[in-house]
Amino acid sequence: MIMKNYLSAVCLFCISTLAVAQTAQDQDGIKEIFNAALTHGQSYQMLTDLCTKIGARLSGSPGAAAAVEWSRHVMETYDFDSVWLQPVMVPHWVRGQQEITRVINSKKMGTVNLSVCALGGSIGTGPSGLSAAVIEVKSFDELRQLGTKAVQGKIVFFNRPMDPTQINTFAAYGGAVNQRGNGAVEAAKLGAVAVIVRSMGLNEEDYPHTGAMHYEPNVNKIPAVAVSTRHANLLSKLIKDEKDLNVYIETHCETLDDAPSFNVIGQINGSEYKDEIIDIGGHLDSWDLAQGAHDDGTGCVQSIEVLRLFKSLGIKPKRTLRAVMFMNEENGLRGGTKYAEEAKAKHENHIAAIESDEGGFTPRGFSMSASDAVKNKIKSWKPMLEPYGLTDFEHAGGGADIGPMAAAGTAMIGFLPDTQRYFDYHHTPVDTIDKVSKRELEMGAAAMTALVFLIDRYGLK
Amino acid sequence: MIMKNYLSAVCLFCISTLAVAQTAQDQDGIKEIFNAALTHGQSYQMLTDLCTKIGARLSGSPGAAAAVEWSRHVMETYDFDSVWLQPVMVPHWVRGQQEITRVINSKKMGTVNLSVCALGGSIGTGPSGLSAAVIEVKSFDELRQLGTKAVQGKIVFFNRPMDPTQINTFAAYGGAVNQRGNGAVEAAKLGAVAVIVRSMGLNEEDYPHTGAMHYEPNVNKIPAVAVSTRHANLLSKLIKDEKDLNVYIETHCETLDDAPSFNVIGQINGSEYKDEIIDIGGHLDSWDLAQGAHDDGTGCVQSIEVLRLFKSLGIKPKRTLRAVMFMNEENGLRGGTKYAEEAKAKHENHIAAIESDEGGFTPRGFSMSASDAVKNKIKSWKPMLEPYGLTDFEHAGGGADIGPMAAAGTAMIGFLPDTQRYFDYHHTPVDTIDKVSKRELEMGAAAMTALVFLIDRYGLK
Repeated sequence: MIMKNYLSAVCLFCISTLAVAQTAQDQDGIKEIFNAALTHGQSYQMLTDLCTKIGARLSGSPGAAAAVEWSRHVMETYDFDSVWLQPVMVPHWVRGQQEITRVINSKKMGTVNLSVCALGGSIGTGPSGLSAAVIEVKSFDELRQLGTKAVQGKIVFFNRPMDPTQINTFAAYGGAVNQRGNGAVEAAKLGAVAVIVRSMGLNEEDYPHTGAMHYEPNVNKIPAVAVSTRHANLLSKLIKDEKDLNVYIETHCETLDDAPSFNVIGQINGSEYKDEIIDIGGHLDSWDLAQGAHDDGTGCVQSIEVLRLFKSLGIKPKRTLRAVMFMNEENGLRGGTKYAEEAKAKHENHIAAIESDEGGFTPRGFSMSASDAVKNKIKSWKPMLEPYGLTDFEHAGGGADIGPMAAAGTAMIGFLPDTQRYFDYHHTPVDTIDKVSKRELEMGAAAMTALVFLIDRYGLK
Repeated sequence: MIMKNYLSAVCLFCISTLAVAQTAQDQDGIKEIFNAALTHGQSYQMLTDLCTKIGARLSGSPGAAAAVEWSRHVMETYDFDSVWLQPVMVPHWVRGQQEITRVINSKKMGTVNLSVCALGGSIGTGPSGLSAAVIEVKSFDELRQLGTKAVQGKIVFFNRPMDPTQINTFAAYGGAVNQRGNGAVEAAKLGAVAVIVRSMGLNEEDYPHTGAMHYEPNVNKIPAVAVSTRHANLLSKLIKDEKDLNVYIETHCETLDDAPSFNVIGQINGSEYKDEIIDIGGHLDSWDLAQGAHDDGTGCVQSIEVLRLFKSLGIKPKRTLRAVMFMNEENGLRGGTKYAEEAKAKHENHIAAIESDEGGFTPRGFSMSASDAVKNKIKSWKPMLEPYGLTDFEHAGGGADIGPMAAAGTAMIGFLPDTQRYFDYHHTPVDTIDKVSKRELEMGAAAMTALVFLIDRYGLK
C-alpha cells in the first residue's frame, strides 16, 4: 500500500467512525425524546385542559378567544424565549339555536325528524323555515343531467358515501367532500331551494358531521345542512319508497362581521443559525359542536410539546423553533395566509413547516412536499425513526395551515398518524378528549420532536 | 443468437409473464377481500352480539357455555362444511362478591378504600378478611433482600410499573407481569400473608386489571389482589409518609371443580390438499369483569370472518381452513393443549396456525415463528400486503393457544395490530365493544384473510 492510499484509507476510516458516532448520538437523542414524552409528557394534560376548560372554539367565538389566551399562557409558563400574538381578522359564523329538519308527509312514517346540523358558512332559513319536495343524487353529474326542470324549487339531497374500500381514509374523504363544499352552489345553479348533504363519515352514526361549505358570486345562496349517515340511509329509503316526499328545514345560522383574532406563536431562538426557522403547528380553531380534540387540539398541544421537550431535555436548538397555533383553518384559512404573508414581508427564512392535523393517533410517518434533495435527506434518517413505528415517508403532503408557505420554498411536512378512526370523530359532537389515547398522543409528539431534532441538527440543505 | 439461447429466452419470458399474471391475480384477490370486509363485513356485528348478548365468559361460567353455543350457531348459520365442539375440562374459578381492600390506620387519611380485584386463581380471604402491615417492593430481588424477618406476617405490595418507554407494549407487559403471576409464591416463601399487585396498565386509571396468578406445590397459598394504578400510586405515597400502615383485605373467590367445556371449530374443506390444515383462531373465554371485546372477542370473530369471506367471495380453498375458538386461554390453556393433543393423535398435518390475540386494532403485520424457508416465503408476499399497512414481518411470535402446535412443526403466525391502546383495556371492566373501531376490526379480519388466501394458494413448502 502506498502512502496516499494509506492516508485515504485513514481518512475514510475517520469519516465513517465519525458518522457512526453521530448516528449513535442521534439515536440516543431520539431515545431520550421518546422516553421523556412517554414518562413525563404534558401533551395529554394540555389537551385535557383545552378540551374540557375551553372546548369548542370556532373562529370569532368566545371559545376561540379563550383558546388564544390559554395557549399564550401555556407557552409563557413553559418559558419559551418569546411568545406573541399575530393579529388576523377572521370570519364569524354562528349557528344559532338547534336546527330542525324533518320529513313531513311520509305515508308510512308520518313526520320523521332527521339528525342534522347546518354546514359552516351556510345562511339560515330563519324561524319560518322552508319546505319543499326532496330529490336524491349521488353526484354533480347526476344533478346536471336532471336539469333545472327537475331541480327547480326542490331540496337536493347529496348522498354519495365516502368509499370504505379506500385504505387511506383521507382519500375516501377527498372523494366525497365536494358535496359538502360545493353542493349548495351546484344545486342553486339549477334552482334548488336548499341542500341536505350526507355526513362525511364511514360508519352508520346518529350524529351529523359539520364542516365548511361555500357560496359563489352570482349564484343564489341557499341553506345547507348535513344529515347523519344513519338518517341519510333512512331518507334515501323513504325517497325510494314514496314519491313527492316533502322535507321541512329550519336553521338559524348567520355570518356576522369579521372578528379580530390571532395566531399564537411561541419561539425558542436558534443558537447558531437563528435566521433558519422551523415551524411546528396545528390549528387552534375547531368546529362549534364539540371539543375539537383530534381536530385539531392534538396538533396544537403536540406543537407546544415539541418545544417543551427541547427545553426540558436541555437541547439548545441551532435553528429557531416556532410552535404556531394557527387560527381559522376550518372556515377561511386566514391564520395560515396571514402567517405566510408576514413571513414574506419580513424576508424570513422558514426552512421547514410541519403540521399535525390528522389526529392524535399512533404515528406512522411523515408526508412531504419538498425538493427531491430535501425528501431524500429526510428519508436517509428513516432507519433511526423506524424503531418507533415511523415507516411511511412516501406520500406527498403537508397541511392546510402551512400550505401558503410553500410558495416561498419552505419544505412542507405533514405528521402522518394512523387515521382509520379519524372520520368517526371529525367535525362531530363526539370529537372529545375520551377519544384520544394518552399514549398515542405522546408517541405523536415524540415523533414530531425527533424529526425536528434531526432537521435542527443537520439542516435541510 | 443460437436456437438454445432463443428457447431459453422464450421460456424465461413465459415464466416471468406467468409470474406477473399470478401476482396480478393475487393482488386482485386481496383487493376483493379488503373490499368485501370493509363494505359488507360482519365481524363488528358478531362482536357486538358476543359482547352485549353474552359478555364476560370465564372458563366454566354460564357465559362461557353461552359463548360456545353462540359461536357454534354463528358458524352453522354461515354454512361452513362442518362445525363441531371439541370437549375439554377447564378450571373453574369464581370471584364471588365484590372484593374489599382498605388502608385502615392512616394518620393522615383515616380509612382509605382501594380499587382492587382478586387475581384469577387466587384463594379468598373469606368473609372475615385479614389485616396486616404492608410493605412495598419493586422486584423479587428486593423482596428477597428484605428477607423473612421483614416479610413474615406482612402484606407485600408489588409496585413495579410497566415501563412506558418500551415502544412495544407487550414488552412492557412482559417486564412487569411476573409480579402478578408469581408474586404470591415469592411472597409466601418469605411468610407473607397476602399480596397486592400494581395493575398491568400504562395509564393512571381508576379500575384494576385482573389476570392469572398461580401457586406452587409446597408453598403456602395466600390471597392476591390487583390494585388500580392510581391507587397503587396512592398506597405507595402513604407507605412512604407513614410507617406501619395496615391494610384490610377481604376476597370471596374460590376454585371449584374442573368443569366441562369445549373448543368450537368450524371448517371449510380443502378442494385439492384437504389434509393440509390452516388454523385461524382466537380464544373464546374472557375475564369475568367485562365483555372481553379486544381480549379476545376480536380474535374469535375475525377468525370466523376469514372463513365467511372465503365463502361469500366464492373462493374455494385448496387446503382445509379451520376457525378455532379456543377455550381457557386466560387461566389454564386447556383448550389449546387439547387441540394440539388431538391433532397429534389423529396424525393431522397443520401447516400453519394463525392467532389473533393482541386486539382488534389497525393491522401492522404478522409475527412468525417458523423455519427460515417458511418465513422467507411469507415475506416474499410483503409487496402485495404493504398497500394495506402490513409492513411488519420481522418479529418472532404466534399466540398462546396455538403454541402447543409448534412441537409438530406447524408454522406459528401471530396477527400483529397496533397495540398502543391494548393495555388500557386488557383484563379490565372497560374492555367493551365501544373501545373497538369497526373499521380497524374489519381491516384486521381482511389482513388475516389475505394472508390465508396466499398460504392456501401457494402452500408453505
